[in-house]
Amino acid sequence: MARDWIHWKDNSTKGLPIDEMMIGQIRTRSSDSYVTDSASSATAYSCGIKTFNGGIAVDDDQEPCGTVLEAAKLKGFMTGLIVTSRITHATPASYVAHIYDRDKEANIALQEIGYTHPLGRTVDILMGGGRCYFTPQKTASSCRKDDIDALAIARTLGYTVFEDRATFDKDVNLPYLGLFTQDHMSYEIDRDPKKEPSLTEMAIKGLNDLYKATKKSKEGFFVLVEASRIDHAGHANDPTGHLHDILEYNHAMDAMREWIDEHDDSPTVLISTADHECGGLTLGYVIDGAPEYWFAPGYFENSKSSTEKLSRDWKAATTTDLARYARDNIFKPYGIMSPTNDEISRAIALRNTTSGFGVFLGQAFSERLGVHWATLGHSAVDVTLYGHGVNHKDFAGQHENTEVAEFVAKQLDLDLDPITERLRKNASWVRDNVKPQPGQTARLKGRDVARNHH
Amino acid sequence: MARDWIHWKDNSTKGLPIDEMMIGQIRTRSSDSYVTDSASSATAYSCGIKTFNGGIAVDDDQEPCGTVLEAAKLKGFMTGLIVTSRITHATPASYVAHIYDRDKEANIALQEIGYTHPLGRTVDILMGGGRCYFTPQKTASSCRKDDIDALAIARTLGYTVFEDRATFDKDVNLPYLGLFTQDHMSYEIDRDPKKEPSLTEMAIKGLNDLYKATKKSKEGFFVLVEASRIDHAGHANDPTGHLHDILEYNHAMDAMREWIDEHDDSPTVLISTADHECGGLTLGYVIDGAPEYWFAPGYFENSKSSTEKLSRDWKAATTTDLARYARDNIFKPYGIMSPTNDEISRAIALRNTTSGFGVFLGQAFSERLGVHWATLGHSAVDVTLYGHGVNHKDFAGQHENTEVAEFVAKQLDLDLDPITERLRKNASWVRDNVKPQPGQTARLKGRDVARNHH
Repeated sequence: MARDWIHWKDNSTKGLPIDEMMIGQIRTRSSDSYVTDSASSATAYSCGIKTFNGGIAVDDDQEPCGTVLEAAKLKGFMTGLIVTSRITHATPASYVAHIYDRDKEANIALQEIGYTHPLGRTVDILMGGGRCYFTPQKTASSCRKDDIDALAIARTLGYTVFEDRATFDKDVNLPYLGLFTQDHMSYEIDRDPKKEPSLTEMAIKGLNDLYKATKKSKEGFFVLVEASRIDHAGHANDPTGHLHDILEYNHAMDAMREWIDEHDDSPTVLISTADHECGGLTLGYVIDGAPEYWFAPGYFENSKSSTEKLSRDWKAATTTDLARYARDNIFKPYGIMSPTNDEISRAIALRNTTSGFGVFLGQAFSERLGVHWATLGHSAVDVTLYGHGVNHKDFAGQHENTEVAEFVAKQLDLDLDPITERLRKNASWVRDNVKPQPGQTARLKGRDVARNHH
Repeated sequence: MARDWIHWKDNSTKGLPIDEMMIGQIRTRSSDSYVTDSASSATAYSCGIKTFNGGIAVDDDQEPCGTVLEAAKLKGFMTGLIVTSRITHATPASYVAHIYDRDKEANIALQEIGYTHPLGRTVDILMGGGRCYFTPQKTASSCRKDDIDALAIARTLGYTVFEDRATFDKDVNLPYLGLFTQDHMSYEIDRDPKKEPSLTEMAIKGLNDLYKATKKSKEGFFVLVEASRIDHAGHANDPTGHLHDILEYNHAMDAMREWIDEHDDSPTVLISTADHECGGLTLGYVIDGAPEYWFAPGYFENSKSSTEKLSRDWKAATTTDLARYARDNIFKPYGIMSPTNDEISRAIALRNTTSGFGVFLGQAFSERLGVHWATLGHSAVDVTLYGHGVNHKDFAGQHENTEVAEFVAKQLDLDLDPITERLRKNASWVRDNVKPQPGQTARLKGRDVARNHH
């Protein structure tokens, strides 16, 4: 979709930056379903094991597993987690926190900064969104249900904590924790560059800081960079949010490739893939039920906001002429220049829904583009694998997602088993922080879900 | 989908045979649309050029282009086209016929056997379906609008012609033309092995015969093997037809890999890809509009026919109790053990439609499986590339579909330009056989289609 948009816009036929780096495919099923969630797939990437949907760096028995980030840190590498979601979201969490349920993000925040982690602080750079899980419940917008001030704790643990673009632009001493938003960071199309850095800016700052910090060391660094919100726009069936986060991902990949080529004194391998497909997106026109062999990326030209932002704007509208407002301030900035009367009525009817309006708007635009979504969730299809730098060709071909951790461990000469053992020795930590508390259970498993609905 | 079915059936987690051969991805857009058809993509594979949807080995000006098969033949290689579609269908046609419109299959048949081809006979093995385009109009089931007996002509041109399994099982002298069915060959799930060989059997017979025929020659052979009907089941939104043709494709790929490994005296490279995705298939449960992270391949266990066959059976039913017939003889053999009353009513209402019932049945089953189809046509997504044998790793990574022809030409040391020149010198042939005749035009172009519907 992104490539076709570039073809349209530039009247070109060239590939995207990532196309040049394509080396393989990843199979993503989890231990309890053909369709993985992010927690299970990220655990495959961090620990090298298959686990159940919802589990964060724990195995099927909800016991913690050592991650490549933890093993790297203990071996003397510097480490980083750089994302555009909440930093406590499933993917970054699975590299340094251990818990049976990805939704326990207040717990995850404390593990990530090393406060309730048996190995102490293992991450030198944490950047992303999700400040709300770091501030006590009395604070405005807090997501915690307790009085813990995780930002203050992070400072006592040595972190430089910052929340603004101005500090980001300065030299900041490691370790640092940069949280730019309460919730997820903005979609790239909505981002105010005065307030939030781009994924590319965060990635390159991270690489530069980790490079400087390890220049005199025998070991180097391990960093996870996630274009987290490509997935969110898939869940929302929002082609515009999706497109611009994909383009920014390409921009970041290109910048990291260039960085690697320019730093041959620090031999680095970059591998990149998705944890799963989301939304079941395919491309092709269907007109009155019949297929036309066409797809119309040109519509993106006038689409300037995510549906997430326009849903907020629409809910906040105070005008009495809602139809005109919808036409001029909602449909038009989304690229729907001539909404039908039915569409306007439907927009008014859906104005106060939680996500109903956003999905409606995204799907109305998708019909015009020739973009199809199969689901508001994930799909079981394979994802594409990209690589650049040292030894990346050793990882060409198709792999299980668990082999991603194995490749990283091999490149950095890491052994995860001793880490797993060290973690599990902390019986009280496992009991209080990793396992379900009395009255709690792990999520319904995939096979159970299916049985219930047979 | 096929891998998940094997996982379910065998309670395994292993990959498919093709998974081990996965080396890259192919971009498929045509010269006039982001969504290619089979003719344009096959022309990219045979001639190495982008052309318009519908064009068979011709360029955007409807001028013929030399193909790798023609160049190989003229250089002394032996050649073959082995498919499960009509042998006159777009993919095989694009390797040896040249015409502005893929639907002119009566013309294509005569070019394929060398009768109206300026280079004469260039294919040593032709196997597949589509006999109806080779018999004069007076013959039962003929698809021709003239009195030409192309089978008789093929014999005079030296071909051994056969139409039955018994002859297939014998040694047959090259060149041969084996046409097992009037239309496409059967879907694998419906195939009667007494009447039609499998794709694997045809592929291995072809390899053995070409190997024997070139054993004493300096040059070797070029053969196209197509699992043609995977695409047809995509158009039909039929998961069961799709699944079993995909499994048979895997079986054929595995057998060809083994054949290559066992014939190291005849160094061979195998590359395999699709001309495009079809149907926009993705996998994931959606229940009452909400996604569940699950997909239920277990339903395939009871699904024993394609929707194509069941549509024929349903249309031919003579019972007075249509509801019972639908339940026992249509829904049940398709794996829908408990159709709803609504579904039975709908089946009765759609009984005499051309393809409406088949699509309804396929989609009803797809809902139970968690299989989603976006379209009855093609989609613009990239397709996966597989390889095995000599130099296949040189073709790893992502490529335009035109690079497939370039890779083949390089491996066989072919130059296509002189072939193109030779073809174009035949002005009367180009005028009478390749270009539109007075009153005819090439298909509507993709961009025009889209403009008409803006």
